[in-house]
Amino acid sequence: MPKERKLRYAMVGGGNGAFIGAVHRKAMALDDQFEWVAGALSSTPERARVSGADLGLADARNHGCWQDLLNDELRRSPEERIDLVSIVTPNDLHYPVALAFVEAGFHVVCDKPLVHTSAQADALVAAVQRSGTVFGVSYNYTGYPMVREARELVRSGALGQVCKITVQYHQGWLSKPVEANDRKALWRMDPARSGSTGAMGDIGSHAENLAATVTGMQPAWLCADLASFGAGRQLDDDAQLLLRYANGARGVIMASQVAAGLENDLRLQVSGTLGTLEWHQENPNQLIHSPLDGPRRILTRGAPWLSAAALRAGRLPAGHPEAFIEAFANVYLGVAADIRARASGQTADPLAADYPQVADGARGVRFIEKVVESAASERKWTALD
Amino acid sequence: MPKERKLRYAMVGGGNGAFIGAVHRKAMALDDQFEWVAGALSSTPERARVSGADLGLADARNHGCWQDLLNDELRRSPEERIDLVSIVTPNDLHYPVALAFVEAGFHVVCDKPLVHTSAQADALVAAVQRSGTVFGVSYNYTGYPMVREARELVRSGALGQVCKITVQYHQGWLSKPVEANDRKALWRMDPARSGSTGAMGDIGSHAENLAATVTGMQPAWLCADLASFGAGRQLDDDAQLLLRYANGARGVIMASQVAAGLENDLRLQVSGTLGTLEWHQENPNQLIHSPLDGPRRILTRGAPWLSAAALRAGRLPAGHPEAFIEAFANVYLGVAADIRARASGQTADPLAADYPQVADGARGVRFIEKVVESAASERKWTALD
Amino acid sequence: MPKERKLRYAMVGGGNGAFIGAVHRKAMALDDQFEWVAGALSSTPERARVSGADLGLADARNHGCWQDLLNDELRRSPEERIDLVSIVTPNDLHYPVALAFVEAGFHVVCDKPLVHTSAQADALVAAVQRSGTVFGVSYNYTGYPMVREARELVRSGALGQVCKITVQYHQGWLSKPVEANDRKALWRMDPARSGSTGAMGDIGSHAENLAATVTGMQPAWLCADLASFGAGRQLDDDAQLLLRYANGARGVIMASQVAAGLENDLRLQVSGTLGTLEWHQENPNQLIHSPLDGPRRILTRGAPWLSAAALRAGRLPAGHPEAFIEAFANVYLGVAADIRARASGQTADPLAADYPQVADGARGVRFIEKVVESAASERKWTALD
Amino acid sequence: MPKERKLRYAMVGGGNGAFIGAVHRKAMALDDQFEWVAGALSSTPERARVSGADLGLADARNHGCWQDLLNDELRRSPEERIDLVSIVTPNDLHYPVALAFVEAGFHVVCDKPLVHTSAQADALVAAVQRSGTVFGVSYNYTGYPMVREARELVRSGALGQVCKITVQYHQGWLSKPVEANDRKALWRMDPARSGSTGAMGDIGSHAENLAATVTGMQPAWLCADLASFGAGRQLDDDAQLLLRYANGARGVIMASQVAAGLENDLRLQVSGTLGTLEWHQENPNQLIHSPLDGPRRILTRGAPWLSAAALRAGRLPAGHPEAFIEAFANVYLGVAADIRARASGQTADPLAADYPQVADGARGVRFIEKVVESAASERKWTALD
Repeated sequence: MPKERKLRYAMVGGGNGAFIGAVHRKAMALDDQFEWVAGALSSTPERARVSGADLGLADARNHGCWQDLLNDELRRSPEERIDLVSIVTPNDLHYPVALAFVEAGFHVVCDKPLVHTSAQADALVAAVQRSGTVFGVSYNYTGYPMVREARELVRSGALGQVCKITVQYHQGWLSKPVEANDRKALWRMDPARSGSTGAMGDIGSHAENLAATVTGMQPAWLCADLASFGAGRQLDDDAQLLLRYANGARGVIMASQVAAGLENDLRLQVSGTLGTLEWHQENPNQLIHSPLDGPRRILTRGAPWLSAAALRAGRLPAGHPEAFIEAFANVYLGVAADIRARASGQTADPLAADYPQVADGARGVRFIEKVVESAASERKWTALD
Repeated sequence: MPKERKLRYAMVGGGNGAFIGAVHRKAMALDDQFEWVAGALSSTPERARVSGADLGLADARNHGCWQDLLNDELRRSPEERIDLVSIVTPNDLHYPVALAFVEAGFHVVCDKPLVHTSAQADALVAAVQRSGTVFGVSYNYTGYPMVREARELVRSGALGQVCKITVQYHQGWLSKPVEANDRKALWRMDPARSGSTGAMGDIGSHAENLAATVTGMQPAWLCADLASFGAGRQLDDDAQLLLRYANGARGVIMASQVAAGLENDLRLQVSGTLGTLEWHQENPNQLIHSPLDGPRRILTRGAPWLSAAALRAGRLPAGHPEAFIEAFANVYLGVAADIRARASGQTADPLAADYPQVADGARGVRFIEKVVESAASERKWTALD
Repeated sequence: MPKERKLRYAMVGGGNGAFIGAVHRKAMALDDQFEWVAGALSSTPERARVSGADLGLADARNHGCWQDLLNDELRRSPEERIDLVSIVTPNDLHYPVALAFVEAGFHVVCDKPLVHTSAQADALVAAVQRSGTVFGVSYNYTGYPMVREARELVRSGALGQVCKITVQYHQGWLSKPVEANDRKALWRMDPARSGSTGAMGDIGSHAENLAATVTGMQPAWLCADLASFGAGRQLDDDAQLLLRYANGARGVIMASQVAAGLENDLRLQVSGTLGTLEWHQENPNQLIHSPLDGPRRILTRGAPWLSAAALRAGRLPAGHPEAFIEAFANVYLGVAADIRARASGQTADPLAADYPQVADGARGVRFIEKVVESAASERKWTALD
Repeated sequence: MPKERKLRYAMVGGGNGAFIGAVHRKAMALDDQFEWVAGALSSTPERARVSGADLGLADARNHGCWQDLLNDELRRSPEERIDLVSIVTPNDLHYPVALAFVEAGFHVVCDKPLVHTSAQADALVAAVQRSGTVFGVSYNYTGYPMVREARELVRSGALGQVCKITVQYHQGWLSKPVEANDRKALWRMDPARSGSTGAMGDIGSHAENLAATVTGMQPAWLCADLASFGAGRQLDDDAQLLLRYANGARGVIMASQVAAGLENDLRLQVSGTLGTLEWHQENPNQLIHSPLDGPRRILTRGAPWLSAAALRAGRLPAGHPEAFIEAFANVYLGVAADIRARASGQTADPLAADYPQVADGARGVRFIEKVVESAASERKWTALD
């Protein structure tokens, strides 16, 4: 089989000093599927161009703003033009950039939370449907092989009927006042850029996606409490939510950035009538499965008895750990498979095109809106749609 | 120093087949402070007497009901008479038995939840104050040395201002239908015997006490959601609560007995402005302390740098694990120290008389009442006190 | 069934300040099978009597030396006389005390290492055979339920043919110079009292017993390296051994008391053709089983799928941890079952009379002798007859 | 600062179905320092060319044998010519390929064990010295940030004088008979291709390098026992070694591929007079440090209090795990830094050029030779020197 050509991509955002842009680029480099050819790496033109030069972008494709990037790509021949754009800006730019590229017919991967409002989300979903493009959302934690194994165990019925879901996502980096030069903290705490929530949107959105992906279930009601511990903060740095599902299942989501001393402590626990699963992001190569009627099991990435979905998401033999970047890369592998399938006029193999889509991102936006509504309400339960 | 005489005790409840009565007896046997001399081991007279005989009680002090036990003790000389009674019956008998023995001037240790209603709790607190007796409540988990270390770290200011408290207490034993002959399950699920809650009272009460003991803080408002997953169950087998404290701190309590496959998975996490503590009951000899400004620390029972309160609660050198029975015994050691201090007309050393008292039990009863009130309410927040 | 009377015991050694004597007493108190009635708690008469008085021994049975204790017991009526003696002295007294009590017809529990020489061990084995008494050796770590589960898994064939055994027993308390008043350290480092080895005898003996008990296999050859890191120490504080078994299996034993910062870090790993077991003493309620053809399993104490031998060795439901004292108590429960069986003229149920016997102790003594011989030899392999 | 050009590399070995070649390529892709331009991917010309085509090599630089590759590169202009070759063949080809490329002036990264004999190793070291090229050996485990932190802690004196070193490297994949079509297993078990050892060379070589790198110490004597459990195997599948160091320190290395059910279980423990370190490859983002005089510490990758060497080896914030590929990439980053420094006529910053060099590989070869010599000897100690 001759090798397929690499997919060409542009990046919007992710200039010097940004954290997540570099992760996206490493993730795309890992599996030899993508080639980086263009970018507009900052909303400040000068900063954008310096970053692009430092990172080796050719001058002709190193742009000062995303509009220039888009226009330039539209002028290029199919042999040069990008296949997709990766949007890693602060949240406020997700909507205009994503919409413009989708409407221009480009495939997109966009960071979470997808957009600021469910109206924007609906518009974007509609645009994606119209354009027929691939649209992935970088909910990277559900790219971990053992999270996919958890999802497959639930799907297979190994847990019976799911009745209890707990996601805790605790960090401690906002326990201290934010430094005036910490750009990546500052925009997250600015409502104009981050949106209507802080910790809830930044990490609670991952918790929502993790719960929904693994269980395949959407809560019907929620009860939210948002708090802000840092002096002068306009947005929440702590969120705690009760969930109720239509089938009676219950859940709790906790997202805090003031759990001083914790790093990136995302944990999932799902119980059904037949057993319980537990996964910790900081030790991601194992999934603990406690069945009702037998010993607890430590499922490890790469073991031959895992599901096809989990095995496919790994690169190395068992015992050779994979981690954050590989999970991120799995999102992009799914996007690439979908792009290639569409290019060849086929429907992608769902095992291959396994990635969070625009509808997942839109659902996350609606969830956050309801969290904000609930937090402001004196009523216990706020319905989700 | 000549050895002090052993304290004589009677047990009410705890006959053949009971779980917790045997634990109380082993806990009292461990440290050579107590001597078991009398009992009324069941509410069924015949069963009581058979159990007492099996367990070696002398016939004259092996009673068919607690009233006979009490009357008999009141007739005995000070050289024979019990010092304390240990009440390990189903919850509905706690109140009448405890009240009667307190009013008769006996010291008491009583299981949790203390009584059914806050009115009973108040009456019992008042009776204890009148009688001047010692009254311990067997919140055994706060007897663990590393829980006491956690409390001391909070007291010392090592965590700064506490802002977030999470207690998860998950078991799986009610994931299956209860067998018709499982006496210890049946009474827990019968409102007449267990009280107004199931999992909340049985294990959520421990969670409440653990949070309150370690932080020294009481929530001001709570928001509760109780669920019952088992077919035909009258009481909750799952509880999830949001907490708000007067100083703005937030908290979550989860207590479930339908987390299939889990055993006795009680976990505590407390974050303050300067760090986070985490403790797991199933591996109780360590406490993880994540300070804001330095590496995570594994504090281990028996290490010389622990607080005096934690060191005092241990018996063995570090690395020689202690566990559930020793934690239980620590509650009794505190009670014994208080009894001996009062006998000698002194105020007990607080380090020695370190045990949950009747006021702690009463607070737990009020908490459960408010949980029930909140669970039935459509308002988000229900005030405590 | 009327309760059987408690077994009466005397203790030799274990006076004020001793560590292990108190553990033996707590272990015997735990299960209501034993009653402490007599003692000679130190080799210094005055210290012996003060200790006994402090601990509540009646004057008439509180002796200044073990010979007086023995003579006094022989004079007493069967209704008063002790059933067994617990010998918890420094090692040099094990032989004369044990031999005298055995020859007088008393049952014995003796600390490890049993005696100083294999000649003594053989003499003691012969004496026990002649007298027909019960003789237990307090290899307490093999009393842990999950160690028994490991043994049963090997016996059942779940591991296939055992091929590799590793025991690491690391402590750090001899990383510092020993204080002049640390009596329990000083005797361990004095060849006259401790015997021909230091760390090897003190903790290596546990490692040998653990490997032998779990696998049921004795090494045929060993290769030993003993080291002494503490300035001026006459005995080893570090031992490392290679083992070869007759069937070709290999093994490693490491015993160190200069692993600074470690506490009581005893770990066992056993591999066979079908899987591997791992157990850590500091977290003793779980046993990790990694089968060749399926997910790793965490076996937990008290779970219903454990072997009868492991279940019998537990007192509490799963998830309610048991620890060091309970494991110790299991040795005594086995001894008690054997004493009671013999008293009734029966052969004990092996499940009940599950404890390390004099032959196990004698094998341990020969093993240590061979370690010393090997350590002094330039030949690689020293045969274990 | 304009970005430096990527370094061009060729690969020898690593065709379709090989495990480690793909890892090398992913490692080199991760950090945007390398560009893959040429290869001879198998010793079978047809297989080589098919593999190269599948992986996207241009025809002109996709060779059927390494000699053709070398000749072709020598003909190319400096603008096209490779900077380095990555040798990922079975062991028997390391020597001729590496020697030829070094003598031709190319930089090299070569898999371990470096070569078959110490004579070859010496010749290769001499050739590298003559040519002045950079030569890295892919001891990838010492590329882990927390292994580097361990090394820095030892260097800083935090452990005091090192006295005890234990490395256990256990896998289970050779517990089963090797399939006739398992190419990567077959060559490892063939003396002609693998060399004089099996497990010892394959994974014991990593254990040796790990111990030496972290402690900076070389053993003076060793005592080896090699075993072969698989029927008909010519090489060891299990190795156990005692080590003695000139300063009196002791050590144990265990390397087994018949620890059924284990995956890639490499563990390091180093004790000095002031503390102990422990690291497990399967959970590589943490290093446990047990100091003599304070609580155990969990050092985590990315935390600001780590050494510069450890921080430099990470890419992501703490709590975002990195793993095997990143560790591998760190070896290549060190090689790249050294190549760039030499290209600019400078001495590389040791913090940047942190990678295992040809001398480390040569030392590993001598170590294996001595292991074989010791295993065949009846004398306990075989001198290294």
